[in-house]
Amino acid sequence: MVNETQHSCSASSSSKSDGGSSSGSESSKDSSRCSTPVLDADRHERLREKMRRRQDAGDKWFSLEFFPPRTANAAVNLISRFDRMGAGGPLFIDVTWHPAGDPGSDKETSSMIIANTAVNYCGLETILHMTCCNQTRDDITGHLQKAKRLGLKNIMALRGDPAGEEWEEEVDGFNHAVDLVKHIRNEFDDYFDICVAGYPKGHPEAESYEADLRHLKEKVFAGADFIITQLFFRSETFLKFMKDCQAIGITCPIIPGIFPIQGYHSLRQLVKLSKLEVPQEIKDVIEPIKDNDAAIRNYGVELAVSMCRELLDSGMVHGLHFYTLNREVATTEVLKRLGIWKEDPRRPLPWAVSAHPKRRVEDVRPIFWASRPKSYIYRTQEWDDFPNGRWGNSSSPAFGELKDYYLFYLKSKSPREELLKMWGEELTGEESVFEVFTCYITGEPNKNGHKVTCMPWNDDPLATETNLLKEQLEKVNRRGILTINSQPNINGKPSTDPIVGWGPSGGYVFQKAYLEFFTSSEIVTALLKVLKKYELRVNYHIVNVKGQNITNAPDLQPNAVTWGIFPGREIIQPTVVDPVSFLSWKDEAFALWIEQWAKLYEEESPSRMIIQYIHDNYYLVNLVDNDFPLENCLWQVVDDTFELLN
Amino acid sequence: MVNETQHSCSASSSSKSDGGSSSGSESSKDSSRCSTPVLDADRHERLREKMRRRQDAGDKWFSLEFFPPRTANAAVNLISRFDRMGAGGPLFIDVTWHPAGDPGSDKETSSMIIANTAVNYCGLETILHMTCCNQTRDDITGHLQKAKRLGLKNIMALRGDPAGEEWEEEVDGFNHAVDLVKHIRNEFDDYFDICVAGYPKGHPEAESYEADLRHLKEKVFAGADFIITQLFFRSETFLKFMKDCQAIGITCPIIPGIFPIQGYHSLRQLVKLSKLEVPQEIKDVIEPIKDNDAAIRNYGVELAVSMCRELLDSGMVHGLHFYTLNREVATTEVLKRLGIWKEDPRRPLPWAVSAHPKRRVEDVRPIFWASRPKSYIYRTQEWDDFPNGRWGNSSSPAFGELKDYYLFYLKSKSPREELLKMWGEELTGEESVFEVFTCYITGEPNKNGHKVTCMPWNDDPLATETNLLKEQLEKVNRRGILTINSQPNINGKPSTDPIVGWGPSGGYVFQKAYLEFFTSSEIVTALLKVLKKYELRVNYHIVNVKGQNITNAPDLQPNAVTWGIFPGREIIQPTVVDPVSFLSWKDEAFALWIEQWAKLYEEESPSRMIIQYIHDNYYLVNLVDNDFPLENCLWQVVDDTFELLN
Repeated sequence: MVNETQHSCSASSSSKSDGGSSSGSESSKDSSRCSTPVLDADRHERLREKMRRRQDAGDKWFSLEFFPPRTANAAVNLISRFDRMGAGGPLFIDVTWHPAGDPGSDKETSSMIIANTAVNYCGLETILHMTCCNQTRDDITGHLQKAKRLGLKNIMALRGDPAGEEWEEEVDGFNHAVDLVKHIRNEFDDYFDICVAGYPKGHPEAESYEADLRHLKEKVFAGADFIITQLFFRSETFLKFMKDCQAIGITCPIIPGIFPIQGYHSLRQLVKLSKLEVPQEIKDVIEPIKDNDAAIRNYGVELAVSMCRELLDSGMVHGLHFYTLNREVATTEVLKRLGIWKEDPRRPLPWAVSAHPKRRVEDVRPIFWASRPKSYIYRTQEWDDFPNGRWGNSSSPAFGELKDYYLFYLKSKSPREELLKMWGEELTGEESVFEVFTCYITGEPNKNGHKVTCMPWNDDPLATETNLLKEQLEKVNRRGILTINSQPNINGKPSTDPIVGWGPSGGYVFQKAYLEFFTSSEIVTALLKVLKKYELRVNYHIVNVKGQNITNAPDLQPNAVTWGIFPGREIIQPTVVDPVSFLSWKDEAFALWIEQWAKLYEEESPSRMIIQYIHDNYYLVNLVDNDFPLENCLWQVVDDTFELLN
Repeated sequence: MVNETQHSCSASSSSKSDGGSSSGSESSKDSSRCSTPVLDADRHERLREKMRRRQDAGDKWFSLEFFPPRTANAAVNLISRFDRMGAGGPLFIDVTWHPAGDPGSDKETSSMIIANTAVNYCGLETILHMTCCNQTRDDITGHLQKAKRLGLKNIMALRGDPAGEEWEEEVDGFNHAVDLVKHIRNEFDDYFDICVAGYPKGHPEAESYEADLRHLKEKVFAGADFIITQLFFRSETFLKFMKDCQAIGITCPIIPGIFPIQGYHSLRQLVKLSKLEVPQEIKDVIEPIKDNDAAIRNYGVELAVSMCRELLDSGMVHGLHFYTLNREVATTEVLKRLGIWKEDPRRPLPWAVSAHPKRRVEDVRPIFWASRPKSYIYRTQEWDDFPNGRWGNSSSPAFGELKDYYLFYLKSKSPREELLKMWGEELTGEESVFEVFTCYITGEPNKNGHKVTCMPWNDDPLATETNLLKEQLEKVNRRGILTINSQPNINGKPSTDPIVGWGPSGGYVFQKAYLEFFTSSEIVTALLKVLKKYELRVNYHIVNVKGQNITNAPDLQPNAVTWGIFPGREIIQPTVVDPVSFLSWKDEAFALWIEQWAKLYEEESPSRMIIQYIHDNYYLVNLVDNDFPLENCLWQVVDDTFELLN
């Protein structure tokens, strides 16, 4: 009678179907029990599984294609773009392979390093393109090994454009994409998900459309998991192609490549490269407005939206792949108008997860790096595993040194001149520093009329959540409590809360109030007297650059400051104040005074000496109010401290 | 300026004192970071450390001495006594060694097995006595190895009484306790804490009081950690002895042995055995009332209380050791009057911890065994470690079979006749079973006038916490929802709450509402329909004896149903509803119908067939309401189910 019911637990009912009352030993090798709760299937599935799950659930999704930048500055900008466009929820991004640009090297502009950054530092599921013609087997294997080592899991296998006009096929060489697909499957078994290219109009070099379909089928049968198509201009083109593929037995997902027309010249260039023909009706619209960029873009968006709607409405298309040309506006607008840009700001965890497979069980981080997640990932990149959802080796959480402030994914998005405008061309004393902190909090312009939109410890404007504390923060920064991190206490808000929510719906999230700041030794002396009154309620760590450390944390244990309770799951506690890693953070936090701020000024200049003085003499303080159901007492602690000083 | 402050974090300030702004790598092998939060220092310290910590904190403590029982039934009773007296908070108990009673054997009456039970199943820090005379070196080593294997960590090293009158010292044999102390240190290094006996009046066989003091010093210098004294009748006797010990250089703790006089005959016997003389002033009181047990006991309590007060007031005594003679009343009364019996019902965790060293990191258990903790420990005794605070091997939590229902620490405290009176000499149908469950909940006598104080799934009366649910439970049991486990939802009560509190003070505890019951397939069919409405809110597992299993638990993940948030610590989640172990619990829960209830009746009898029918046809159901901040919806689920059935 009840067996017809859904959710029958097949693993157990099959293994236990002969179970009687006296048995008891339970073998469960296939149990999914794990030490760290699985919050988000996305982190544990491979790309092809995600695709299937989204398709089965009837979800529509999108993906974004980028090419590697030409300069280091462009790389910094591209990473910011990854972060912004990543927020819209692409299923994956892909990075093209530029044989001329040393694509497998360690340069910041190489395809490999850009893809690595997208995966590890931006947390994006990423496909790395790879071409094979004119390359040796060893080169290709080397690239693939490196990609694997960096945590890349997906390859788009392409032939690439032959160098020179006189290219001829080599015997036993890599002459076609299918050779690369076979090579990947031979050498790396099932490790990579493999994507191949499809040509809705047939590849320009193919003997015929039918011959090209047969080539595609070969690539799929050699082990490709899905297909992304070349761009096209009419939905019928794609739908016909898809039916033709199915007719010859291609059953894997086929994802249409969408190219929103963004400008006259880029369209012409692309068309030339891809040897496609622009339909007359499009030419007719574009030619008369070819010098009006905005008009062309509007038209391109319009056209892309209506073609995408037709594709999605056909019922045959579940995902759309966008050729972004590394630009944001047009693609974002198309996606928003289609309603598949994710507007829900909720996150699986309160911090941005990395997509490196070894970090897929990571679910605890120290709160200190909340505004510098890329630096945290960088400093823990050597950790081999995350056995407790965190530190690689629980007895020795060694943090890498942060010497590489110049790395494009770690450095400030703003150039030196802009930083000087924000933080002061010339400082006159510690008070001018207080002023900078205060302007950052309030959003008001500084005395020279410039808004302070970033700080050495935070490259972005104030978080929405921090806005809840704005008034108090302003008051204390003005008086020399230079805050760099804080969170309000939260006593059980729904996990769907737009500001503080995270994790699956139906849950409740909690926080202990946290405040972290630099301050003078004079204030610390008073603060310590005040903290005696709060001994049982407030945990503190106070440390100077030399490592002198004062704390009341019991046994150097971590203090959970963010946690969530969800239906049918274990407790998740993604953020802790951890006494051991605080000392590693301290090194970084103090160093940022020098690396990002003092070095803006001439050596021996008064401005530089002021920052150096603060660096040498101030303390870094963090405070946790353990009584999260009561009103946050940390402001009272600070008020009491100021009162004691008066 | 701030360096004088307390709580300076020495580990880090020493290792980082040369730290500058550019360093960062943090070696912290000596960090106390661990995957499972340390809630209770008591679980991690050895006995001598606990003693020292209590002394340093100025706490007074007590310990209790028991001898092994003569019969299996007496063993059952002794284990209940351990549980009851354990609640008063002894620092340790000790179990004497009876050479005549096969003390190292696996019999349920052996010293070894009783001590093993106290440690593993009652969670008591335990000292096992061991004597050495008339035993071979191999025998002794064998006993010590076995003790270590069973998780015993403390030995009271004694000579023992020579067998026969004509005992002579053997060359190289174990002639004195000091030989045993040396042997333990030689063979087991520092593994055991060792206690030795002190004689405030001198050992009766010693040449002199002074000679005996020298012997004691030898035992301490050979490696003993502390001393427990023979009983005495005047506090001066002990205090003089202690000063004499200190005078000759004995600095370890010396714990006075307290013997509350409980009866005329036991006093005479003990005095004869120990060759002590009862002071005239005591004889004068006792002789006239020697046939009045109550009067003697009252006098004994009075005498013990005043002697203990003198000892404690001396400032030299921090702990008191009680010779209980396996009796409860007198010792408990003395301890309560002294104010050192722990009245605070709070626990370090919501379930009783085991004191086996390998379980010291255990901090998660399935809720199912909440009323059968000893059975849970028994079924998991083979687990080697608790890497995530729980299952021995996280990928394969194999539960041992429970076949040994007869084991003295697993079986019901009540004899068969009593169980029949409670659960019915003759059952007339399923309704008579409903009636038994209902009487257990309400505390009302059954129709034959007997109160139902235990059930096969719970050997104790209803927990205080369950009383919160009494009214609802009564209603549903009457209608055939036969509840065996439940807890109310709790949304952040202080950890000091007398009913639901646990863990260190200053924290907050939480629970999700839980309900577990047996019920008929008819009710299950209706229940499943109702549960559809609660799909996102209520997690369920429904299983019959054959293992047919219906659940909506995501990915077989555990659901945390009890957790606590404490100052300066990670989240503790000691109780989970775990889909995998539920199937092991199911076997036990169904088997208890047969083993404990059906077998009370003749084979083929109607009563037995009724229980057998329930066993074969009912389902075991558990429900969790995930919305812990809202009113518990599980009663509504059950009400809706009954309504659907009507």
